[in-house]
Amino acid sequence: MNAPSAPAQLSQIERIARQAEVVRALQAVLPAHALLWHSEDTTPYECDGLTAYRQRPLVVALPETEDQVAAVLKACHALAVPVVARGAGTGLSGGAMPHALGVTLSLAKFNRILRIDPRSRTALVQAGVRNLAISEAAAPHGLYYAPDPSSQIACTIGGNVAENSGGVHCLKYGLTLHNVLQVRGFTVEGAPITFGAEALDTPGLDLLSLVIGSEGMLAVITDVTVKLVPKPLLARCIMASFDDVRKAGDAVASVIAEGIIPAGLEMMDKPMTAAVEDFVHAGYDLNAAAILLCESDGTPEEVEEEIGRMSAVLRRCGATAIAVSRDEAERLRFWSGRKNAFPASGRISPDYMCMDSTIPRKRLADILLAIAEMEKKYGLRCANVFHAGDGNLHPLILFDANDADQLHRCELFGADILETSVAMGGTVTGEHGVGVEKLNSMCVQFSAEENAQMFAVKRAFDTNGLLNPGKVIPTLQRCAEYGKMLVRAGQLTHPELPRF
Amino acid sequence: MNAPSAPAQLSQIERIARQAEVVRALQAVLPAHALLWHSEDTTPYECDGLTAYRQRPLVVALPETEDQVAAVLKACHALAVPVVARGAGTGLSGGAMPHALGVTLSLAKFNRILRIDPRSRTALVQAGVRNLAISEAAAPHGLYYAPDPSSQIACTIGGNVAENSGGVHCLKYGLTLHNVLQVRGFTVEGAPITFGAEALDTPGLDLLSLVIGSEGMLAVITDVTVKLVPKPLLARCIMASFDDVRKAGDAVASVIAEGIIPAGLEMMDKPMTAAVEDFVHAGYDLNAAAILLCESDGTPEEVEEEIGRMSAVLRRCGATAIAVSRDEAERLRFWSGRKNAFPASGRISPDYMCMDSTIPRKRLADILLAIAEMEKKYGLRCANVFHAGDGNLHPLILFDANDADQLHRCELFGADILETSVAMGGTVTGEHGVGVEKLNSMCVQFSAEENAQMFAVKRAFDTNGLLNPGKVIPTLQRCAEYGKMLVRAGQLTHPELPRF
Repeated sequence: MNAPSAPAQLSQIERIARQAEVVRALQAVLPAHALLWHSEDTTPYECDGLTAYRQRPLVVALPETEDQVAAVLKACHALAVPVVARGAGTGLSGGAMPHALGVTLSLAKFNRILRIDPRSRTALVQAGVRNLAISEAAAPHGLYYAPDPSSQIACTIGGNVAENSGGVHCLKYGLTLHNVLQVRGFTVEGAPITFGAEALDTPGLDLLSLVIGSEGMLAVITDVTVKLVPKPLLARCIMASFDDVRKAGDAVASVIAEGIIPAGLEMMDKPMTAAVEDFVHAGYDLNAAAILLCESDGTPEEVEEEIGRMSAVLRRCGATAIAVSRDEAERLRFWSGRKNAFPASGRISPDYMCMDSTIPRKRLADILLAIAEMEKKYGLRCANVFHAGDGNLHPLILFDANDADQLHRCELFGADILETSVAMGGTVTGEHGVGVEKLNSMCVQFSAEENAQMFAVKRAFDTNGLLNPGKVIPTLQRCAEYGKMLVRAGQLTHPELPRF
Repeated sequence: MNAPSAPAQLSQIERIARQAEVVRALQAVLPAHALLWHSEDTTPYECDGLTAYRQRPLVVALPETEDQVAAVLKACHALAVPVVARGAGTGLSGGAMPHALGVTLSLAKFNRILRIDPRSRTALVQAGVRNLAISEAAAPHGLYYAPDPSSQIACTIGGNVAENSGGVHCLKYGLTLHNVLQVRGFTVEGAPITFGAEALDTPGLDLLSLVIGSEGMLAVITDVTVKLVPKPLLARCIMASFDDVRKAGDAVASVIAEGIIPAGLEMMDKPMTAAVEDFVHAGYDLNAAAILLCESDGTPEEVEEEIGRMSAVLRRCGATAIAVSRDEAERLRFWSGRKNAFPASGRISPDYMCMDSTIPRKRLADILLAIAEMEKKYGLRCANVFHAGDGNLHPLILFDANDADQLHRCELFGADILETSVAMGGTVTGEHGVGVEKLNSMCVQFSAEENAQMFAVKRAFDTNGLLNPGKVIPTLQRCAEYGKMLVRAGQLTHPELPRF
């Protein structure tokens, strides 16, 4: 989509000299096996889940102890070398893309679960522990860690904190922000820093909320205290068909307006349903204009009561068919389609671009109709899968990247979805972060003053801008180049967005 | 408790000259009736709910429009005058205590509810709207605003945002942080600023979470978009007696560990029960060492199921008697004692000091036993009322302020409770804010580096420190004077806390 800024230009000889300098400094504080700099060793680190953008780092550091993390940061700070922290590299917005002249600091060796405390329902885990591993470790106590990004088998809790990750259950159980009590790590100078506490709230400024979702810009995270929640006794899922996307969108808003917080509330449109049904045979209604999946979890009594109320709302909103999972196997089958939406899209189109905007829930039908208009305007198909309950869209624009004109139209289509989402009162990213991918979109979301305010907060932690530079917050110049912020006679202006 | 820093010393003549200068500047931007500076007019503003600390402001400004707020801030910024924003002045930690050379900016005229949207379940209200007024306006739609501080009849939403207020229902429904989508206001320079959005999450740094609980240090708030939740169909309350505080404390942890999130979970010890029963005749068990109030709300089916499970846990944990409210009148009677704990304490002691620390829930019994030891050590009684589910203590130390020795012992007792809470993994304030009252305690809670980090973030919004100066974050010098931070040979040190 939007190409990241070109890394600072240095001659090859200058780069090698710089690399030698950094390697020498880090060899003094790390064992030999914890330092990679030959290109065959650093190539695996050249991108994260946003594979379109690649860059080999100068050096990869794999510290094994907190003291080593502090020492790496101190050494980099002394040499003014950028540091990019990295978890499992599953991020979708290029947040962990290396810096050409920087150190990629991998937390892969920080993979120990330090404490599971069933009494206080908390777990203390190192930053490199996989999301799902926490739930596996808590399972003997009937507990689990609620936020469940699709990548949960691979992604790490440190990355989840950096991106404030969600998942299909975050409607009921909250984002990472709502499930983390304390984060520990090191500042850019290598000093230890603690955010939050193991008790309710903390006094003073809420730096815990600030570090969650800060995409590696404020500190390097080494361990996290998370909340655990009890595994519900039962979960059942409703699959409801609608002959009109507006009715389906309205049904989502009506379920929530009824005072129900489903454990999951997902929506797929007809092109998406067709793609996944052909792939996984989940039993989806191929005639429906849209289908909703509504999950309830809790005690059997709670689930029965909530399934009854949700079914009544869905019928009142015009559902043409309603099926309720009768057992766990059927529930998992209902979800199998939703969970395979991305690979299924890969089967029906050479390429697809996944967007991640949000809109106020009541605008669901409006954005779907707007996207349908855009399909005509840009001459490309779009399959839609939504975290509908949260108003978080994942439109998948289908195109062929080998066709330059299609790629160009796809980029315009994507930018149009993001700008329309903002104009409807939404945001340019729900859960995938800004990284390098959505830097331009930040110019649409925020005014020059608001982006400047974020830079000021960033500088309060990292005066020289060494932690994950060039990500998340766009420069004024970049926004001006993108045409979304104009400097006229020394005054910043912000072009009016269309009104919906 | 801890006396706030003395305001900058100026001669009376200098003060009058400064006042004249500020009045002149503000007269240019405000109507005459919106500006107070004669001492008989400014005296009502000299303190908030922390009445022990009083200070008349230089000037009180009562702007009526956003343009006037911006103009006041611009004028104060130009003159380098401190600005202290003020809601209803019900805060308990002196957060709205005026600055001797500053302007108190009252949001009292910002009292309009701008929009109630039952479909998106949100309300847009001005900062000076009372907490309870939001719920009253939403009631026709079957909705209400969940956070319910005891002062909700008087306190304003702007003040709630500034303090991140809670209430007896915040265990289930969250703090202000969890119930606010967007905050709008003005920077110290008078520029408009928006925090958050009306949709899920926002990209970039989470400045919304940062402004919530920032006690007027980052911006002046003019309006707030809050979430509304459906009024539950039914609420019932269990009153359980225990013959031992440890059993009661363990019962609280066990209810939560069972996977139940009660709508309220409060605890009172024997001295408190005796004081309130004598006052309101709520029917409390006077023989119990501690009583718990556990509320469930929801549909009748949910409530019945949850009351059954909670009763079973309480019995298993050794409850000697259990009563469940049979109707709304009885439920309100059960709560009447809890809600009158503070005035009841005023009847049994000339003075009391209310603490507000938190501890991890599993340490409830430990802190109660530690407080019992402190009663002997300091020779003062302490009645305890807790937001037990949150681990938020409100010990009320009973004393006579006219007895200097008792006052001194009370201050030591209070500081001991706070430091013991921190040592147990808790914090020095749960919901009342830091203000001026807990500045010294911040030296116990945070290291010099952590307080310095907060100052750095503060400066990112307010370079010259004009917004509510002298509050919330202690200076290094103050911590050194309090003996909680030592500078030795140029190196900061932080005395070891006792281990429990």
